[in-house]
This record gives sequence, structure tokens and C-alpha cells, in this order.
Amino acid sequence: MPGTKDARERGYANGRARREEIIRIASEYFAERGFLSATILEIAAVCGISRPGLLHHFPDKEALLEAVLEARDIEDRERFRPYARGHGGMGVLRGMVDLAAHNRLVPGLIELFVRLSSEASAPDHPAHEYFRDRYERIRSGTSRTLAAAIAHGHLRPDLDPDDAALRLTAAMDGLQTLWLYDRSIDMAGRIGTMLREWMTPEGEAAFDAAAPAPAEPLAMAEHGQVG
Amino acid sequence: MPGTKDARERGYANGRARREEIIRIASEYFAERGFLSATILEIAAVCGISRPGLLHHFPDKEALLEAVLEARDIEDRERFRPYARGHGGMGVLRGMVDLAAHNRLVPGLIELFVRLSSEASAPDHPAHEYFRDRYERIRSGTSRTLAAAIAHGHLRPDLDPDDAALRLTAAMDGLQTLWLYDRSIDMAGRIGTMLREWMTPEGEAAFDAAAPAPAEPLAMAEHGQVG
Repeated sequence: MPGTKDARERGYANGRARREEIIRIASEYFAERGFLSATILEIAAVCGISRPGLLHHFPDKEALLEAVLEARDIEDRERFRPYARGHGGMGVLRGMVDLAAHNRLVPGLIELFVRLSSEASAPDHPAHEYFRDRYERIRSGTSRTLAAAIAHGHLRPDLDPDDAALRLTAAMDGLQTLWLYDRSIDMAGRIGTMLREWMTPEGEAAFDAAAPAPAEPLAMAEHGQVG
Repeated sequence: MPGTKDARERGYANGRARREEIIRIASEYFAERGFLSATILEIAAVCGISRPGLLHHFPDKEALLEAVLEARDIEDRERFRPYARGHGGMGVLRGMVDLAAHNRLVPGLIELFVRLSSEASAPDHPAHEYFRDRYERIRSGTSRTLAAAIAHGHLRPDLDPDDAALRLTAAMDGLQTLWLYDRSIDMAGRIGTMLREWMTPEGEAAFDAAAPAPAEPLAMAEHGQVG
């Protein structure tokens, strides 16, 4: 019976749309209030549904948090392309700077990651492993990128990739916290200055040449802080 | 009647000791749970007193938070001396590195500042102005220090003091968050590498000579993140 199938598919589509809407609102709510002090009842109220209505989609607050972080990761991967390869690592570094410029346009995401990454530093927080793994991934990915750029003669040969990757990750994180208090801070400019201190003249040329195609302006999921 | 006066003074002393004990425990509690999700009832329970007993010392949670931050500032000022003057700004920079080394020994303070600084980025948070002012003070103080060090020929003349101060503040903040996830991170080492990238040979000599007297190992309140 095709009619029944259509109705079922419409039902699925409605359920998906509702689910995505809840994730979007929960993301904003966690960004504003943190995970620990937010309640399912409050989030349901902001979504305009009942508590059982929300629990139909997500059995508990932890499941909702997991869905919020998973949605961010999927968005990240989709935005991840234009900078990823080539330019002897300088494309990725250029992507980090452009990402920092982009992030100013999505303050809710910065708030979400600043709030949750600090809250989740407690080992019993449900997002603790997520953030621990995420920082490890960002640091090791950035370190590989820096090592490639050094090997290509784009960065100073005496730069230690692991040390510099850690400092870059910390700077991006720290700038986001400071930016929440002073929106005049040019995060991309500061990361750019930091990177240019490490570049050889050849590296600067490769960095400037590494702008992405205009149709794909933003990316660098794994290496950015909120992207 | 001297007896009455002694009794009254003993009473005051007991009250002060109790008050300090509450501040110490509340500080740990805020560090672990954040300010928003902590309750007066929970903190009273950890202190081993009743809710009215706690409210006798602090009328509400905001007053308790204020007392916690004020106690930190007083401690900071007391620890502030040995690095403050001389060495053409290099003493202060040396103090920042030593402070980062010290902070590993007081993880609760790092947790408190990482937690509260992110939570208080919301403009309606009771500690919002405290952290906004604190970041401004740290940035402008660090900028003055860097300008002095540049003027003394200790740092590269092309370094922009405001830009470098912001990056240094962000790096110290960001390293503390990352450290909560990976205690093997050598925060002092990373800050030291960052500063040495900016130093002239004369600056390195002044930096190495700027170690404080052994009797006063730690300081640098206004320029450190949690000190």
C-alpha cells in the first residue's frame, strides 16, 4: 500500500526534522547554561514540547549531549575539504586562520565549546572522553601538519612540531575564551601573527597562495577549535 | 571586664576561622561543579554545617563567590613580590614561567579559574565583570612589561606589545584547559619556549639572571592566570 508507505516516510521526515530542531536548541541551551545546570524540563520548554515528548527522541540528557556533539562532528567533516591537502602543510595552517575568522560569525559554537570543554574537564563528566580525544586528535594532527611544513622548508627547521602544535591548540582555545569577554579581539589576526613568526620566506609565499577556492570558504574541522 | 573581651575575641577568631574554612571548601566545590550548578545546601553539607549556619556567614551564593574570588586576589597580592621590578621587564616574564610551573601543584585553582572563567563569559553571570576586568588588567599589565623589555633591547624590536600580550594571556589560559585533560603537559616549558622566541641574546641572559631569591619562590599575581 503506497499510501501507507508515504505516510510512514512523512512521519520519519517529521521525526528527523523535530530531532534536528531539538539538537539545535539544546546546543544553544548548553552553550548558555552549561550541561550540568541545564535540565531536560527546561530544554523541552524552550523546544515547545513536553518532557515526555523530548524523552521520546532522547532517553536522557546524556543522550542529548552526545547527539549535540555528534552533529557538530558531522558538520565539521562536511566543512573539512578545501584546505586539507597540498601546499606542503601550509593549506591546513591557512585553514586554521580562516576558521578562526569564521568562528566569530558563530558565537554560539564558541560558547558551546568553551563551556563544555571546561565543564567536561572533570573525569566523571559525560563529555570528558569526547574532549580528551578531541584535543589529542587536534594536537597530533597539527603536529603532523607542522612537521610536513618544516620538511618542505616552509617553517623554521628548529621548530619542535609537538611543542608548537600544543602552543597553537592552546592559543586557539585561549583566544576563544578571551574573545567571549572582548569581541573586538581579532582571533584570526593573532593566530596569523603566531604562524608567521615560524615561517620562512618560502613558507609565507605558500601560505598566501593557499587561499581556498571562493566557492568553499571555510573548513579545517579537525584542526580548529569549534569548526 | 577583660574576661568578656577575651571571650568576644575568641568568638571573632572562631568566626573568622570558620569563614575561611567555608571559603576554602566553596572554592573547591565551585572548581569541581561550577558556580551555577552548586547549591548552598550542598556546600553547607560538605562544610558539615546547616544551611542557616552557612547563610549566617554569607547571605547568598553570590556573596560566597565574591568571597572566594576576593580571597584569591589577596593571596595573589601576597605572592606578588619577588619578580615585580627590575631586569628591564624580564623579571616579570620569568615570574610568569615560574608561576605556570607552580600552578601544577595547585590543580584545584586551575580548575576553579578554568571553570569560572568559561561559565562567567555569560554577561549575566555574577562573576562576569570580575573576569572581564581581570583579563583586561592582565593584558594591559603584560603589554606594559613587554614594551619595557623591548625598550631595554631584551625582546625583538618588531614585536607588537599588545598583540604579544594577548597571545601570551591566551596561551596561558588555553594551556591550563589542555592541562586538565593531559597532566603531562609542561605548561612552564611551553610558555618559556614562546617567550624565548621573542628574546634577543641580551634578553635571554637577563631572563636567566632573573630567578627570584630562593626564600620567595613564587609570585606574579597580576600576570598569571590563577596566581
